[in-house]
Amino acid sequence: MGLAIALIHFPVRNRLGRVVNTAITNFDIHDLARAARTYGLERYYIVAPVASQRDFVRRVMAHWSEGPGAEMNITRKEALQLVRLVRDINEVHDNLAEETGRTPIFVATSARPLPNSISYAELRRRIETQPQNEFCVLFGTGYGLDDAVTSEVDLMLAPVRGPTDWNHLSVRSAASVILDRLRGNRDDLQP
Amino acid sequence: MGLAIALIHFPVRNRLGRVVNTAITNFDIHDLARAARTYGLERYYIVAPVASQRDFVRRVMAHWSEGPGAEMNITRKEALQLVRLVRDINEVHDNLAEETGRTPIFVATSARPLPNSISYAELRRRIETQPQNEFCVLFGTGYGLDDAVTSEVDLMLAPVRGPTDWNHLSVRSAASVILDRLRGNRDDLQP
Repeated sequence: MGLAIALIHFPVRNRLGRVVNTAITNFDIHDLARAARTYGLERYYIVAPVASQRDFVRRVMAHWSEGPGAEMNITRKEALQLVRLVRDINEVHDNLAEETGRTPIFVATSARPLPNSISYAELRRRIETQPQNEFCVLFGTGYGLDDAVTSEVDLMLAPVRGPTDWNHLSVRSAASVILDRLRGNRDDLQP
Repeated sequence: MGLAIALIHFPVRNRLGRVVNTAITNFDIHDLARAARTYGLERYYIVAPVASQRDFVRRVMAHWSEGPGAEMNITRKEALQLVRLVRDINEVHDNLAEETGRTPIFVATSARPLPNSISYAELRRRIETQPQNEFCVLFGTGYGLDDAVTSEVDLMLAPVRGPTDWNHLSVRSAASVILDRLRGNRDDLQP
């Protein structure tokens, strides 16, 4: 199955539009790992260039994988097994290429409509029909991915929309909805 | 638009299957409020019978609605305006009936397949074609809604499924995915 996700903590924008490194949010670790597992993914990259941030994620993972949490909550352990801690997107690229033998295709997400974005149906089709490619959907924390990322990716995914113009979902909600649109059970999604 | 959501903190089950009252999770307040707003809902009920829990939610809401947070993050304020704090599901019923003038129809969610559950497409169709009804989808915290709830509701919604048998989504993820399936932009969802 040629789909992975990556949660980017740098470079992303803050509310003033400046490029920042965001803090790790505990709920992002668990919620995205659970969603990745539910939708059959094998890899969830947490991209954080600061070593102490990666150490924090390691401590959380150790608690639920080996520590007291492992017995208390088995599904949390199972989900966290998908997490890969990396420094930057290049490392995601190299790890994906090496482990899957496929060509990584990076897909950026944004809450704002951008030109040349690909639809959910089209990306789903490509994932299902291009076994030579490993697609990796990038999610920005803070106020979204910096242009340094979106200008370098292979594809932009259309924003998630409801029936309104307001679409300020948390990254946890957006990632879950996007995985459902790309990998949700087809019978469930048919009208 | 005849759809609301309610997040239930009692009666729900813990991991041992016992009926408990769960703690309020700050991220549940924000993530579900943002999802409700994105998908055009007007009401997001937080059902918590313990007064100190409702006070906690009020403090969070005040911070973002009137306090320092209101200026810092306008979308958080806009989303939280949908939150209604209530003691139990009866109060949800009465508030919905009074404010909308429609008949409340309660729809329970579960991660386990249950008999006589309704599909997403069918519930979406009913929401769009039954203006006399106000549908309210109930989400359980902890390990899910107690039978005391599921045995009393009007409808059960099918579990969210990906391509695997593993479906342990967080309540934040599940609620977001379900709202997308019921109210996501149709063009986005078409294959």
